[in-house]
Formats: sequence, structure tokens, C-alpha cells
Amino acid sequence: MAAPPPARPRRLVPLFLGLFQGALLLFFALFVTYDKVSAQAEDANLVANQLYGIFPLFQDIQVMLVVGLGLLLTFLPHYGFSALTHNFLLLNFSTQWALVLQGLLHHFHRSEIHLDLHNLLTAEFAAVTVLISVGAVLGRTSPCQLLVVAICEVPIYFASEWVIITHLGVLDVGGTITIHVFSCYFGLGVSKALFGAVRRPAHPKETPTPRSDLLSVVGTLILWVFWPSFVAVLCEPGDAQHRAILNTFLAMSASAMTTVVASSLLESDGKLSPGHLQNGSLAGGVAIGAVANMAMPPVAALALGSLSAVACVLGFRFLTPLLARKFALQDQCGIHNLHGLPGILGAVASVVAVLVASEDTSGSHSSQVSPARGNATEAAWGQQGDHGAGGQALCQAAGLAVAIGGSLLAGLLTGAVLRLPCLARLPERLCFDDSLYFKIQDDAESPGPDGAAEEGALALKEQV
Amino acid sequence: MAAPPPARPRRLVPLFLGLFQGALLLFFALFVTYDKVSAQAEDANLVANQLYGIFPLFQDIQVMLVVGLGLLLTFLPHYGFSALTHNFLLLNFSTQWALVLQGLLHHFHRSEIHLDLHNLLTAEFAAVTVLISVGAVLGRTSPCQLLVVAICEVPIYFASEWVIITHLGVLDVGGTITIHVFSCYFGLGVSKALFGAVRRPAHPKETPTPRSDLLSVVGTLILWVFWPSFVAVLCEPGDAQHRAILNTFLAMSASAMTTVVASSLLESDGKLSPGHLQNGSLAGGVAIGAVANMAMPPVAALALGSLSAVACVLGFRFLTPLLARKFALQDQCGIHNLHGLPGILGAVASVVAVLVASEDTSGSHSSQVSPARGNATEAAWGQQGDHGAGGQALCQAAGLAVAIGGSLLAGLLTGAVLRLPCLARLPERLCFDDSLYFKIQDDAESPGPDGAAEEGALALKEQV
Amino acid sequence: MAAPPPARPRRLVPLFLGLFQGALLLFFALFVTYDKVSAQAEDANLVANQLYGIFPLFQDIQVMLVVGLGLLLTFLPHYGFSALTHNFLLLNFSTQWALVLQGLLHHFHRSEIHLDLHNLLTAEFAAVTVLISVGAVLGRTSPCQLLVVAICEVPIYFASEWVIITHLGVLDVGGTITIHVFSCYFGLGVSKALFGAVRRPAHPKETPTPRSDLLSVVGTLILWVFWPSFVAVLCEPGDAQHRAILNTFLAMSASAMTTVVASSLLESDGKLSPGHLQNGSLAGGVAIGAVANMAMPPVAALALGSLSAVACVLGFRFLTPLLARKFALQDQCGIHNLHGLPGILGAVASVVAVLVASEDTSGSHSSQVSPARGNATEAAWGQQGDHGAGGQALCQAAGLAVAIGGSLLAGLLTGAVLRLPCLARLPERLCFDDSLYFKIQDDAESPGPDGAAEEGALALKEQV
Repeated sequence: MAAPPPARPRRLVPLFLGLFQGALLLFFALFVTYDKVSAQAEDANLVANQLYGIFPLFQDIQVMLVVGLGLLLTFLPHYGFSALTHNFLLLNFSTQWALVLQGLLHHFHRSEIHLDLHNLLTAEFAAVTVLISVGAVLGRTSPCQLLVVAICEVPIYFASEWVIITHLGVLDVGGTITIHVFSCYFGLGVSKALFGAVRRPAHPKETPTPRSDLLSVVGTLILWVFWPSFVAVLCEPGDAQHRAILNTFLAMSASAMTTVVASSLLESDGKLSPGHLQNGSLAGGVAIGAVANMAMPPVAALALGSLSAVACVLGFRFLTPLLARKFALQDQCGIHNLHGLPGILGAVASVVAVLVASEDTSGSHSSQVSPARGNATEAAWGQQGDHGAGGQALCQAAGLAVAIGGSLLAGLLTGAVLRLPCLARLPERLCFDDSLYFKIQDDAESPGPDGAAEEGALALKEQV
Repeated sequence: MAAPPPARPRRLVPLFLGLFQGALLLFFALFVTYDKVSAQAEDANLVANQLYGIFPLFQDIQVMLVVGLGLLLTFLPHYGFSALTHNFLLLNFSTQWALVLQGLLHHFHRSEIHLDLHNLLTAEFAAVTVLISVGAVLGRTSPCQLLVVAICEVPIYFASEWVIITHLGVLDVGGTITIHVFSCYFGLGVSKALFGAVRRPAHPKETPTPRSDLLSVVGTLILWVFWPSFVAVLCEPGDAQHRAILNTFLAMSASAMTTVVASSLLESDGKLSPGHLQNGSLAGGVAIGAVANMAMPPVAALALGSLSAVACVLGFRFLTPLLARKFALQDQCGIHNLHGLPGILGAVASVVAVLVASEDTSGSHSSQVSPARGNATEAAWGQQGDHGAGGQALCQAAGLAVAIGGSLLAGLLTGAVLRLPCLARLPERLCFDDSLYFKIQDDAESPGPDGAAEEGALALKEQV
Repeated sequence: MAAPPPARPRRLVPLFLGLFQGALLLFFALFVTYDKVSAQAEDANLVANQLYGIFPLFQDIQVMLVVGLGLLLTFLPHYGFSALTHNFLLLNFSTQWALVLQGLLHHFHRSEIHLDLHNLLTAEFAAVTVLISVGAVLGRTSPCQLLVVAICEVPIYFASEWVIITHLGVLDVGGTITIHVFSCYFGLGVSKALFGAVRRPAHPKETPTPRSDLLSVVGTLILWVFWPSFVAVLCEPGDAQHRAILNTFLAMSASAMTTVVASSLLESDGKLSPGHLQNGSLAGGVAIGAVANMAMPPVAALALGSLSAVACVLGFRFLTPLLARKFALQDQCGIHNLHGLPGILGAVASVVAVLVASEDTSGSHSSQVSPARGNATEAAWGQQGDHGAGGQALCQAAGLAVAIGGSLLAGLLTGAVLRLPCLARLPERLCFDDSLYFKIQDDAESPGPDGAAEEGALALKEQV
């Protein structure tokens, strides 16, 4: 039997979280307030109308992150409970941590932070990057390690987003570059640094069952349905938002159909792979984010959706095995195929869209790309750069480069931190198992031959 | 062993879908654009407000079709993954196909098609008819055959809808006649023509398990919750829409309770049948569609909901076995009980409602039935006929007759097409099995005695 | 074998429900109408805008009650179908019953009842109390007994709500006192009176499996996501509603994180208990209801969320076993920990908030606590008492006392009614089993050694 892992790391996480909750309370007590009550009835009406505009979209996004993404991750049959729960807890922790960081950043400017739904949304978007990144190391990491990833990634995301959106003026209303590309390469960096050059053999608990695949597809479908809300929530209200919703719908519809085509044609027996469907159907939503609100024809959204689905399926079929063989790169959920490749495609599409839009209507470029400059968008994504079309195209490309390079570097560093001896690493045989961190009887799920191995594992677990 | 089915039909579907995606791109490139950007701030506000009015309802309907209906179909324990996925893919294909057909129809009038959420909605309603119809042949059809059904049914739906709504002026805001009755008899026609006069014995994989019944009920509940959005989305905003929501709620609540009464009283041991509950709870929503926005008292909605639940349960208990015995009619999901009988009831109710409304308030009839004539409704359902009350009642009856007769005929023809030798038919022993079209290990689900049969089936499958 | 229970109680429920549906129809026919159609276009716009404000929140609440709460109750592996279905049917019955009672109460004032979404909402809130209360006796009660609980609890809820809100003027916009505390102690009263002083040993079917725990967590997550809609739906539109949403979000986020801390630190092996997570994550939502719309700083919401999660987890760990040991009190779902303790905390918080608010801004108290007095709120919760701050604080405390005392007494009486010989009691061995009331084969779920026991149980069931 292996040497026992460091004593009681399980206590570390709750103790840290308890301290963090205390610090959060202190921070909120000192610095955070709500907006003043609006004195006049007209203002109250305005507030109500703004709320009715954003709140349903906010709820849609909550469902996506908490229920949809959580269920998507339940494809590991013995790790579903952990995947769903860790996703939920990480989302909460990262959002709180992002609120604190946002608050500290604002604090340099004025003394109080006014909390509203818009702040919450931007904090949640920071948290999304964590949820995506940890997909690369799903099932092989302890809660302690997941927390460290969240602690490192959120501030790096804010820095990267500041460079890309505020400094470079990149157009990216749906977070294709700032969220998807960034979090993908961050996660791959973490995975590479954490697992090193050792190739892992397939784990017996890694294979999905029909039942776990079914629940995972339900997660995909929930994400698929609500994705337009995710892309459009920070658009300026009116035409651009309407267009963003339609473009996202078209891209995702094309993705779903193209995934079937690509997956069936690639397999020798013509059968569809559940994994392709679970991810490929969403690829269009990832790619469309950078261009969703631009004045491009609907066919562009369809084409982008199709292309990104092809890229996603090809990635699963050829690139992931290649990366595993050549670089021993572990990517449990295939985030490179769902977020990396479609994200890069989307960024390239935004370069093309900016160039084409300027050719079409030279002289009236800025009103074409973004007809109005809502406050909401300026504050977050989609700030209109005041460059010419060529300059804007360069900026989009530079933003992509920053997102890839910066996140890869930061991810590698974060992964190195995860190897610190004070953070318990999971022995391979204990991976992918709900009963390691939850009071759950896994016996009913896997009776029979590996009962003895189970018991040994359980004995080991007592020490972890 | 049976003669091997025609070679590689599995390749047919992805190849066709690939070609279709190409044609779709071409069509969109040539003909489809978005509305022009509105130049003025007031217009932008108007667009935003319209969007906030319709978008939450649109998302509700998406959840119904993608998640709710998909889960409802997972009651077959070994076919859940296929049912959920085929439903999703068929929805996407049919919607795209409906958009193309809509575009072609419009193209005769003006040169460009302006895509908006309202177009998408009407295209999705066309797709719904396909999803309902294939319920009759669930689990016994190949993806290839499902596609052919979609290709045939969508244009026939548009024709039937044109006759019923535009030509006859039938009032049917929730699609009771145009969607539910039409798709039901279309599906029954397909089933009859496809399976002929041979009665199938019960298949061993047809029996639901507690787990598959549970997921299926979750689907029912999702449909139940969001059904008011489906009925009300195309109502003119204001009182009529409010009334449509309330009427639908009342009808569905009455349905749920009455289903329990009818189901328990019919069974000798007083136990509730999951199938009755899954379908009967929704019957009220099917029936209320034709009258939901009319100025009738709330008690009418309750009564209609109760009656349709009774019809649905009686249909399951007596009519379905009778049709199977007398006509060898196969109706896997019982669409005749959920969509056919309640749909007819709803149509009859609309006749009565029109007559009663005119008696109540002779002289002010048109303002009673439909207080305002929104553009949205005129373009789609609910166009107010300019007949007198008696004439309108006749029209409603004529619409029902057209929906039943036309769809049955068209369904029979479509079913005959499905028997063409180029379309592979599924051997009975391979039915109801996820592993036929998906890379899924079904072993974990059914260990034990039928292992050998499974292997034989798998050997066969390699050839299909 | 025990003496056979009274003959055919299974027939009782459908017969009663059938009669009730008939009475409901009669009542609606005589007394209930819709509002008159608004004659003018401006009014129609107003109606539409009000609808767009409330309808998405209404749908969110429907999802919570039908899908979220239903799934949360599926943690019993052999009773999931019953739990989900009974929850749905009880919701419908109780809502209809509440509509009738509401109607009768209004009838004394004016002759007709005008049904709208707001009426439906208040009726659903009455139904929620039934759904919460029966959690204490989940799995050990027959449908007949559940119906009796609903029949008794809804009118008592209306009386209690009248005393607390209208008479005492308690502020409780999210139903912390009127719904959660009330229904908790009502349910505990029922449980105590029904099961008496006999302590039940653990039932073999009571232990959750990983799969049933997973589905139950999905229910928790759905409730968690939509809880802000539940709390905010009856707030006056504008700032107060915005604040209620944010406060609820903060409280629930703090609850989720604190649950992990508390649960892990309490267990000797540091593992998280699924039950703690399923309930503790929601405790903040229960507690925040009484103060959500008040002008308190955000930190108060966080602190309240954390505290209530600690109370919930401590309750599960220590109080529930203690109550079971000392008082033989049965609380199957732990409603005392999720609704009772956090509810009391929330009520205490409202006392503190009222006192602090008055100290902060003496003289301008009433505009601080509740800036506007919407009609909606006056009619239901949150009516502003015209007392001073001290008087208001006393009222809050008095409201809590009324809710606890009244509901406990009424619950004990209701429980005594459930013991009447005409209502069949479930023999212990038949508890927690779907196949008792549904045509479901439970064999696949529990093969093997207890097959014989199963058969015996089945034999018994035929007589129940």
C-alpha cells in the first residue's frame, strides 16, 4: 500500500472556507452597499423596467451554470454527485471571491461599492472561467486543489479581461475570447503542470454508462436552450440584443446538426458518440460570442456554427489523442475541443467580420458594428474601439494572442502551485469516486468482482 | 439469421444532413437578412420592450420542446438516450427546414426574408408537429425514416395551416387544431402505412422501469409548468394574453386532478398508472388552445381540462387496445390519447364558445372574442374571421375536418414512402435499443439471462 | 399477518377528488370571473407590462414547486416516483382548494371574484405550506391522509396569515414567518399526533442511494436558482424588488458555502453529508424572506445566510436525533432544520432590522423600511404596520409566536384526525414503496435476498 497522504487535508478546506466567509463578511460590512433608494416614482418605474429586462436573462444564466453545466459533468458514473456538487460550490466560492476583487479594484476610485445585478453578472462570468478550466482535471483533483485554482484564476481573469477589453478595445460581447479561450488554455496549463509528463492509463471508472450519458445530455440540452441569454445579456438593449439572440440560436442549431454529420462520418461503424453530441452541439455558442451583436448576415452565424462543430468533433477524434500521446496532456472533459478550438474560430471570425463590415460600408463603420453604446456594455464587454477597421482587426487578433499566451502561462504556474506538498494529491486508484468526499454508499453502483479493491480503497480513504 | 439489411444506410443520414446544411447555407446567403437597424432611440426602446415581452416565453417553449418533451419520451428504459437525442435533432432539422420553406413562400412576395424571433417561433411550431407525429412510431424507426417524416410533414403542415387559418379563418391561438390534431392523425397515418396489418407482440424492452418512468414524469412536469407560455406566446399582448395564461393554468390543473380520479377508478386494484399520469396531466393544455384567449368564464377552462383528461385516460384504457386489435394500429406513445382526443374536444369547445359568445352579446361579437388584432396574431394563428357567429362556428368545424382528413391522408402517403426499399427498416429484435445508433454500452442495464440474445443482436447490428 | 386494513380506501381518494372537482366547477360557475376587458389601448399596454413583470417570476415559482421541490423529495430510492407525483398532485389540489376558500372569503365583500395571476400566486403560497408540512411524514402516509392534511391546513394558513399580516401588521415579504415557520410546526404537530410516542426503527428502504441523492441535489439546485423569484414576486416593483433579489442571492450563496464548512467540521471523517448539502444550501432563502426588501446593508444578508446554514446543519446533527430520542418525533425530510430553525432566525433578524433601521434614521422610519406601498403588497404580505419601531419589533415577535403556537396546535389536531379509523394507516413494512399506489415494477430496483419479503408485502398490498 502507498505511503499515507498528509494527515487531514480534509479539514483544510472547511477551515479555509470558514475563514474566507468571515473575511467576506468583514469586507462587505466595510465597503459594500446598495444603491440609494430612488426618491421619485418615475425612477422607480425605470428601475423596475431595467430589472424586468435583465432578471429573466440572469435567471437563465444561473440555470445554465448551476443545473446545466453541473449535469453535463455527470458523465462519470461514479463521480456524478461530486461533479455536480463541486461545480455548484466552486461557482459560489468564485463568485464571492470575484465580488471581493471587483470591490477592491473599485475601492481605489471611490469609497463605496454599489452592488447590483450587473456586478453579480460580471462576478459570475469570472466564476465561469474557473468552472470551465477545472474540466480539464475533473475527477483527479481534491477540493483543496480546486479551491487553489479558483483563488488564482479569478484575479488573472480580471487582469486578462482588462488588457483585452479595456486596453486593447477588443469586441467580444459573448466572452468568446475573454472567457472561453482564456479558461481553456488556463485549464490545460494547470493540467500539464499538475500531471507532468506521465501518461495515465484509462481508469476503470472513467467509462460513462448509458444512464450517466443520459443525464449529461440533459445538461447539454439545458445549456443549449439558455445559451442565447448568456451571449445577449450584456448587449445594449434593442436591435443588437435581438440580433445576438438570433445569431446564437442559428449558430447552435447548425452546430447540433453538423455534429451528427461529422461524428457519424468519422466513425467506422457510423454510430454517434455521446461525447461528441454533448460537446459539439454547444460549440456554435462558444464561437458566436465574439461576433453575435455585429451587423453580419444570418448565414455567417450558421456557417460559424457548422465550422466550430466540425472543429470540435475533429478535436475529439484526432487532436485530444494526439496531445495525450505527444505531450501527455490530460483533458478529461475535452475543454480544448469545446472551448479552445471553437473559441479561436470565433476570434478569427471577429477579425473577418470587422474587416468585411468596413469594406461594405467604409465611412460608417462604427455605427455598423455597434449601433449604440450602452453603459452596460462599456463597463464590461463590447466596448467599441476607436481604431479604424484594420486597427480593430489587429486588436481582435492581439486579444486572442493575449488570451492564449497569458492564460497558458498563468495556468502552468497555478498547476505548479497545486503540486506543493501541503496540497494532498489524489492517488490514482481513488480518483473518480463520489465516496471519497461524500457520505455516499457506492456499493449499489458497482457490486461484484472489484468489491475487494473497493474495500482497500475505502481503507485508504480513511487516511486521506 | 435474417438477410442483412441494405448496406450502410447509416451513412445515408449524415450525408444527407451534410448536403442539407450546405443547401441551408446557400439559401440563407441568398435570401435571408435581419431587419435594418432602427435609426432612432425611440425605436430601439420599442424593439427592446417587444423583445422583453416575447423572449422569456420563447425560452420557456424551447425548454418544453428540448428538455420537457425529450424527457417525456425516455420512458423506454433502453431507448432513453435515443429518444432524447432524436427529439433534439429532429427539432433542429425540422426548424431549419421550416425556415427554408417559410422563406421560399415569402420569396414570391418580396425579395428578402427578414428573420426575427417571430419567424423562428412559427418555424418551431411546424417542427413541433413532427416531434408529436413520430411519437406513434417511437423506437421502431431508423433516423433515416424519421428524417423522411420531417421532410414530408413540414410542408404539409404549412399547407394545412394556410387552409385552416388563412383561408377558413379558424380561431386557434394555441394550435389545438393546426398542431395537435393535425400531427396526431398524420402520425397515425404514418404508423398504419408503415407497419401494415401485422400486429406486433409486446417487445421485451418496451416495459418502463421505475427509473425511466421517473425521468419521464419529470418531462411531463416541465411541459406542464411551461405550457401556458406555449399557448399564450402568439396572443395579442394585454388582456387576451393574460386570459390565455390563466385559462391554460386552470385547464391543466383540472386535468392533473381528473387524471387521478379517472385512472384510479378504472383500474381494478385502484393503482395509478404512470402512463396515464404522464399524458393525462397535459391533456387540458392540448384542448384549451383553441379557446384560451376567448372571453369565456373560467369554469369553462376547468371543465374542458377535466373532460379532456377523462378522454385521454379512457383512450389509453379502451381505445388504444381496440385500435390495436381491430386495425393493428401501432401508437407507441399514445399520441391519439394525448393529442387526438383532447384536440377534437378543444375544437368542439371552440364551436360552442363561438356560438355562446354570440348569443351572450349579439352585436358586439367580434370585440368579445378577440378584443384587439395584433399583427403577430394576424400573421399566424388567431386571425379573426369576418363571418357571423354561425359562420364562424361552421368554420371551426370545417377546420377540424380538414385537419383530420388532410393529415390522415398525407400521413398514409408518407408512411408508404417509408416502406421504400432504399430506407432500411428495423428488424423487430433491434428495436428500442440505444446501442444501435449510439456508442453506448447497454450491458450494464440488462445483465444476466438475455446476454446471449444481446450478443446476437449486436452481431446483427454491425450489419445494419 | 396483521388484520386487513379497512376495505378499499384506495377508492376513497379518487371518489373524493371527483366530488371535489365537481364542487369546484360549481363554485367557479357561480362566483368566479375574469376582469373585464380593458376598453382602451393604453390600459392594454399597462396590462401587458404588468404581465411581463410578474409572469416570468410566476413561471420560476412554478418550476420550483413542481420540479425543484418534487425532485428534492426523491431521495428515498424506492419512493421517488410517489414523492414527485404526490407533491405535484397535492400542489394542484391545495391550490384549487385555496382558490375556493379565497373566493368564499371575498364573497362576503362583493359578489364576484375576479381571477388573475396575483390570486393564483397567493393560492399557490397557501399550497406551499401543505407541501412543506407533509415532508415530516413523507413515505409513511397514504394519499388519503395527505388529502386530509391539505384540507385542514389551507384554511388554517389563511387564518394565521390574516392574524399575522393583516391584524398584527408583520413585515414578511418572502413568507419566512407566515409560510416556512407556520408549515414546519404544523407538520411536526401532525407527525407527533399521528405517530404518537412509538419510536420507529430505521426502515431498510429509507437509505438514499447515490443515484437518488443525485436527483435530489438537482432538485435543490433548481430551488436554489429560482428562490429569488419566490421572495421577490410580491415586492413592490422598483428598488425594493431589486434589493430583495440581491439579498436572497447573497444569503443563499453564503448558505451554500457555510453548509460545507459546518458539515465537514462536524463529521469525524470530514466527509460532506448529502442531506446537509441538500437542505443547508437553501436555509438562507428561508431566513431572508422576512427582511429581504428592507433597507439593510448587504452584509446582513450574507450573515443571515451563514447563520441559518449553521443552524440547519446543527439541527440535522444534534437536534433531530435528540427530538427523536426524547419525544419520538418523526421528521422524515428534516423540515425543522430547513424551515423551522432558519425561519425563526429570519424572524429574529426582522426584529433586529426594524429596531436598527429606526435608530439609524429616526423620523424617516417608514420610508426606509418600505419605500412604496404597492397594492400587491398591501393585499398580501409586507403591509407596513403603522406602529413605531419598537411596536413594529414587538409585532414581528408576536407574529412569530402566533405562527409557532397556532400551527403546532392545529397540526396536533390535524394529526389526531389522521388517526381516525376510517383513514387507513400504512403498516410499517409497506412504507416507502412506489409500488403500493402506482403500477410500477419495483423488482429491477431491489433484486435478490429480500425478494420473499417483497412478495409478502405485495400480497399485503392487495388488501390495502
